[in-house]
Amino acid sequence: MNVTHNEAFALLEKIDNILILTHRSPDGDAVGSMFALYYALKEMGKNVRCIIDTVSTALSFPVCEEAFTEFNEEYVVTVDVADKKLLTEETLSLYGDKVYLAIDHHEANKPFAENMLLDANASAACEVIFDMLEGAGKEISKKTAEALYLGVATDTGCFRYPNTTAHTLYVASELVSKGAPNGEINRIVFETKSRAYVQFETLAMNSLKTYFDGKCAVIVITQDMYKRTGTSEADTHSIAALPRQIEGVLAGVVIKEKKDGTYKVSVRTNEPVSAAEICETFGGGGHRLAAGCELSGRQTEVVNAVLKVIGEALKDI
Amino acid sequence: MNVTHNEAFALLEKIDNILILTHRSPDGDAVGSMFALYYALKEMGKNVRCIIDTVSTALSFPVCEEAFTEFNEEYVVTVDVADKKLLTEETLSLYGDKVYLAIDHHEANKPFAENMLLDANASAACEVIFDMLEGAGKEISKKTAEALYLGVATDTGCFRYPNTTAHTLYVASELVSKGAPNGEINRIVFETKSRAYVQFETLAMNSLKTYFDGKCAVIVITQDMYKRTGTSEADTHSIAALPRQIEGVLAGVVIKEKKDGTYKVSVRTNEPVSAAEICETFGGGGHRLAAGCELSGRQTEVVNAVLKVIGEALKDI
Repeated sequence: MNVTHNEAFALLEKIDNILILTHRSPDGDAVGSMFALYYALKEMGKNVRCIIDTVSTALSFPVCEEAFTEFNEEYVVTVDVADKKLLTEETLSLYGDKVYLAIDHHEANKPFAENMLLDANASAACEVIFDMLEGAGKEISKKTAEALYLGVATDTGCFRYPNTTAHTLYVASELVSKGAPNGEINRIVFETKSRAYVQFETLAMNSLKTYFDGKCAVIVITQDMYKRTGTSEADTHSIAALPRQIEGVLAGVVIKEKKDGTYKVSVRTNEPVSAAEICETFGGGGHRLAAGCELSGRQTEVVNAVLKVIGEALKDI
Repeated sequence: MNVTHNEAFALLEKIDNILILTHRSPDGDAVGSMFALYYALKEMGKNVRCIIDTVSTALSFPVCEEAFTEFNEEYVVTVDVADKKLLTEETLSLYGDKVYLAIDHHEANKPFAENMLLDANASAACEVIFDMLEGAGKEISKKTAEALYLGVATDTGCFRYPNTTAHTLYVASELVSKGAPNGEINRIVFETKSRAYVQFETLAMNSLKTYFDGKCAVIVITQDMYKRTGTSEADTHSIAALPRQIEGVLAGVVIKEKKDGTYKVSVRTNEPVSAAEICETFGGGGHRLAAGCELSGRQTEVVNAVLKVIGEALKDI
């Protein structure tokens, strides 16, 4: 059942002993929305715990050790999870069919929870949570504001992406006025590259190839590139933005080899190309201009399969 | 004489036949504040004209040809000019001592105008102009909002830099709600790199050297690099941000060879290092964490002179 922001808050007010889950390979919005909700519910006197995959160092500041103290949960809430398949293997098997409330912002959300608060106009799950807390008149603490800012900033590329609305900027303004240290968070998340990452980015840019008269640019990341530079997938999320940045590119693709030899594909597009449609062909999904999917096969097969679908999407442009 | 936002607006209301000037090598805030003020004054029924240096293609969208129609001005207004020496040679000699009103946001501003509206807490001259117009109850049109957004976004690195306050984000939210196409402007200004620029950036990153245990990183740009990649100084402003992005760097320096063989130095720092203090040593200035100066001499002499001052600044850290 779809619920409004106020209804979702009312549900949360009524329940206790809550477990919060988010998607695997957590990004800033997953971490931010999980800990923002954790702090807000703790401040309301609830027992709350979290289960989360490994968090990249740059995103770990709102993570609170106390959030992992075990107790038997009665209710499960997910944040920023568009599809239960995106939970970790363990949480999927334990809780996939027992989610009481899902809070999300993905247009391509596949409903799996008893109650769902979905706002596809929101830039981030953190924006949805802000609206829910503000709408309910709940005071937003500095810690909650900090976690919410992380999510909103991450999912908008620090307010660069076109999912940034006047409301998103209003939310960010409120969060900063409530004490979110935006300069410091931005510096850690967006302005700091390790030497290892700088080397990795150089290797990645060397692998860049363009197709279809420069309308498509593709970077292929191999496990060897992580090894040579001492990086890991979790540290290199931001590479996804690079191919689309080149002038004239309508579809920017990053194809990452995973440890098991399969491939994770992230697609960023400019209008009128839909990244979500391209990725849905392969059973993936996401937003109109930023989506993902997973493929298996040999590297050249994977690249060719992706290029074929993109070629179709670019055909009449 | 220092004037308040309201007093500055009252001065503008009283005068007519206005010439607007900004600093040479105009960045997004120079272009944005010039054209925002141009549109706002035109909407108030004034005769207004502008003189501006060559504008980089990426920043040219608010530029309006009509703004260059000549007539004999009665009053000169500068925007985003911290020191009259930053005017172009021609405008300095013609108007340097005849500025009626200067609107600026640089802490290190050296007063030169009859009246000065200076708000050093504002992220951008465009934020000062927004506050002046909003404070006076003047309706902000879509064209003015677009130009103002350009300046605020440029000077905050699209809301990444620590000069972004809650008020800055509020201003941005208002501008977007008044029709500034933020997604499109961000894509043009921040998310689009020409192939030439991508090549230039690779060359620049190859020249990067670190000093003082990695606390200082320096990139040297030569005229040859522009030639080899088909770029120019005006297209490569964003390079200034790169050295400071490397983990552990407190002072990031870009030294650019100019056509006349002298050097333009831009310094970006992290706390507790003051970029303004470093640049003031060489007669330059700017903000605490982002400043600039100009030096002449042979390349190695210039690099060593800058490193010596930075070494002093880093000594007790």
